[in-house]
Amino acid sequence: MSWNLAAAKALMLELRQTAMTNERKTGKKPPTRSSPRPQRVRLAGFAQSLAKEWRRLGLPAANARVVVAVSGGADSVALLLSMNELVDANKLRLKLFVAHLDHSLRKDSRADARWVKALARRLGHESLARRVNVKALAAGSGDNLEQAARRARYKFLAKVAKEKQAVVVLTAHTMDDQAETVVLNLLRGSGMDGLSGMEPARQLGEGSEIILARPLLGWARRTDTENYCRSLAVEFLTDEMNTDEKFTRVRVRRQLLPQMESFNPKIVEGLARTAELLREDFAALDRAASRLLELAIEDGAGSRLRIDLLALAPTALRRRALRQWIEQGRGDLKRIERVHVLAVESLLFGDRGGRVIELPGGPKVLRRQKWLEFA
Amino acid sequence: MSWNLAAAKALMLELRQTAMTNERKTGKKPPTRSSPRPQRVRLAGFAQSLAKEWRRLGLPAANARVVVAVSGGADSVALLLSMNELVDANKLRLKLFVAHLDHSLRKDSRADARWVKALARRLGHESLARRVNVKALAAGSGDNLEQAARRARYKFLAKVAKEKQAVVVLTAHTMDDQAETVVLNLLRGSGMDGLSGMEPARQLGEGSEIILARPLLGWARRTDTENYCRSLAVEFLTDEMNTDEKFTRVRVRRQLLPQMESFNPKIVEGLARTAELLREDFAALDRAASRLLELAIEDGAGSRLRIDLLALAPTALRRRALRQWIEQGRGDLKRIERVHVLAVESLLFGDRGGRVIELPGGPKVLRRQKWLEFA
Repeated sequence: MSWNLAAAKALMLELRQTAMTNERKTGKKPPTRSSPRPQRVRLAGFAQSLAKEWRRLGLPAANARVVVAVSGGADSVALLLSMNELVDANKLRLKLFVAHLDHSLRKDSRADARWVKALARRLGHESLARRVNVKALAAGSGDNLEQAARRARYKFLAKVAKEKQAVVVLTAHTMDDQAETVVLNLLRGSGMDGLSGMEPARQLGEGSEIILARPLLGWARRTDTENYCRSLAVEFLTDEMNTDEKFTRVRVRRQLLPQMESFNPKIVEGLARTAELLREDFAALDRAASRLLELAIEDGAGSRLRIDLLALAPTALRRRALRQWIEQGRGDLKRIERVHVLAVESLLFGDRGGRVIELPGGPKVLRRQKWLEFA
Repeated sequence: MSWNLAAAKALMLELRQTAMTNERKTGKKPPTRSSPRPQRVRLAGFAQSLAKEWRRLGLPAANARVVVAVSGGADSVALLLSMNELVDANKLRLKLFVAHLDHSLRKDSRADARWVKALARRLGHESLARRVNVKALAAGSGDNLEQAARRARYKFLAKVAKEKQAVVVLTAHTMDDQAETVVLNLLRGSGMDGLSGMEPARQLGEGSEIILARPLLGWARRTDTENYCRSLAVEFLTDEMNTDEKFTRVRVRRQLLPQMESFNPKIVEGLARTAELLREDFAALDRAASRLLELAIEDGAGSRLRIDLLALAPTALRRRALRQWIEQGRGDLKRIERVHVLAVESLLFGDRGGRVIELPGGPKVLRRQKWLEFA
């Protein structure tokens, strides 16, 4: 389930009220019209845009701990610097933690970790680093390097957030990353799920209360992060893997997107917009499918499904509801592909009962009269 | 509304029954197991694939008149030849008509029209041609050439179908055309509507009983149509507009898609699959939005909308329902853009009543207490 704006607003309201309570306790009063205005710190445009997105996403503005994932590249350094700017200017009353995972993929990686630590110290934030051997992890799990690195990173971030009691973890994905993700998924023949790209805010993990937010995703271009770092005279690291064309993502960035730009100079913004539209559609379909599933599950009859309701539903809803039902029935969707959902769907339309579909890793699904059941 | 598979199946069943009735009348019996098998005509693979798709789309197999749009290019000549093959082999018992629109865009266009007429005559099908001045139509309407040509073509096809009492009109769009359409719409920053590409079968026009079908769309590549024509030693015309890179579509075909193929050799199939998945999702969302609209329209209260229900619905459904409501209220969606739907949506969330949104070309929409209304 994705992080829900309504819930976010409720949380924000609660945090504001807590802040007011604290003000009352300390005897500080909120400024009134007649009192002199507090001195305004002039915020950089980049930090202003971040503050606007922060509000739009309904993220907490006070009394919360936030982990910022920093690799040391321009994007994450810009994210850290701008969060730091907002905290310094008292626009956000948050405690920041810097988290850096050393993937051991390059020989400079230890130096990079030291560099990030020094930057955090200079800005006055606690930093936490860890070193993992991504190559070994990849070899052990069968993931490719990018997948293994990603998995290790999010696991590390979740651990840091839990340790530090942070409610939000930030990553510095930009609008360019979003466009690349959409194109990569398109090249793979994805449906709506892939084409809707990354979410600007979601739960960090299933059932987690920690929010993973990407507050640069909706508006910042890669050139913006570089320019912002330069404007503050802060250096950033460059990662040669970002220019290594053996990675598909790098070739999309350096070859395909520039050609798409020759058709539409605003293609990156266009792809980000497409992703946003599809994300809304995706959320609506997912909710409609859940409702269909609720209706189709017979009360008091375990988890068996009414065939008639499912058969009448539009194809896309029916398939989503069946996927959700399978997930509920076996606890996860590991190894479940579209073809398995279609096989289960075919049970709905056969005339005969008694047919059985065996899902990979179990269980079996069978049709008994007017119901689908797990065996 | 899109042509519905369930309705198609019902229609097909009905036509089959009619066919059986006719057989009874003429005293011909359907072949039985014990009777000698009728001599089989060996169908080309291309025609077999067409027959399979014809069944999948639920198109009528007998006792119907079908208009085939033929420009004279490889795609439409292959479509005509393969339909002809299926009719000759008695796989489809249909009467075919060939329709050709001369766009007057090239100086050879009169010769092309004669060529198509001769081909139709050679195959034994009636042909109907018309000549329009697309440049003048474009200048008069503000459409670009491609839009004006398209509009003139579908108008002509609808006219021919009506005159000849045809129930189906066929165009020869291939899977390559579908992939190009998806990419073109992606370059424009489309949402789900554009990315779902062309439909393999839909109503020819709003409320029309004529089906527009594209039976090559789901499987045939452009090379397949050319090879099929060659295998029958039938020539086809080439249109130099198909290689003129001043058209965006041609540049997508000749520059962008080949580069995408370097990432995924099956990109055309992948894009067609993406379009199909999104089409299913689109249909489901559209139906769910209609249902939301039904619930939100107060019975006996004209067309005013209950704000509470809409405000609770997922964003994508709410916006779709509002769009449908606007369309019902003013008869069409001319000049209504996303920004207008968002403006109407903003009325739902404001605290104050009495706000008014003026739609381009009218009417006004206003919030009165718990309802949205047209002024």
